[in-house]
Amino acid sequence: MKSQNIFSKIPKNLKCEIFELLINDDTVTIERIISKGQQSSSWYDQKKNEWVIVLKGEAILTFENQTSVQLKEGDFINIPAHSKHRVSWSEPENETIWLAVHY
Amino acid sequence: MKSQNIFSKIPKNLKCEIFELLINDDTVTIERIISKGQQSSSWYDQKKNEWVIVLKGEAILTFENQTSVQLKEGDFINIPAHSKHRVSWSEPENETIWLAVHY
Repeated sequence: MKSQNIFSKIPKNLKCEIFELLINDDTVTIERIISKGQQSSSWYDQKKNEWVIVLKGEAILTFENQTSVQLKEGDFINIPAHSKHRVSWSEPENETIWLAVHY
Repeated sequence: MKSQNIFSKIPKNLKCEIFELLINDDTVTIERIISKGQQSSSWYDQKKNEWVIVLKGEAILTFENQTSVQLKEGDFINIPAHSKHRVSWSEPENETIWLAVHY
């Protein structure tokens, strides 16, 4: 069995946010997300719950009720299904690496 | 909605490994594990798959076929259900913080 590293193989072209599936199962998906200065163009309205942690960098999530949560390295949050949210800010100079578990 | 930090609230007494459930759902559990020099006393033989990442520190997993995988910061591995494994070494001087998703 081999390990991989969550901080490796960062694509150089980060014009858009990058979503990479690490696990894609019937019940759960685990994905790495890389942001660099992007904001979400629209609300995420997801069928599944999402547990998400920032492993590197910094970003701000904004919810439909206009509350915002700033997430720095190691910060995690659980977003229940259908809680509309978007990335309203992410660090522009460096990559922000997220790990998200949809369940 | 509030965030928490995966690196905060590290218990001072780490005589045993500590397992803390962050999410406990019908389909998935997400837990933080803190090791400090411990080895598993027996094999883990789990009904569910386990995706696990080392977020801080360093450890070695050994599988039943005697292969070992060294895991450092950011290294992750997917352990299929019933792949018997154990922690054969973890950093003795500092905490090793794991994030495990059982699915």
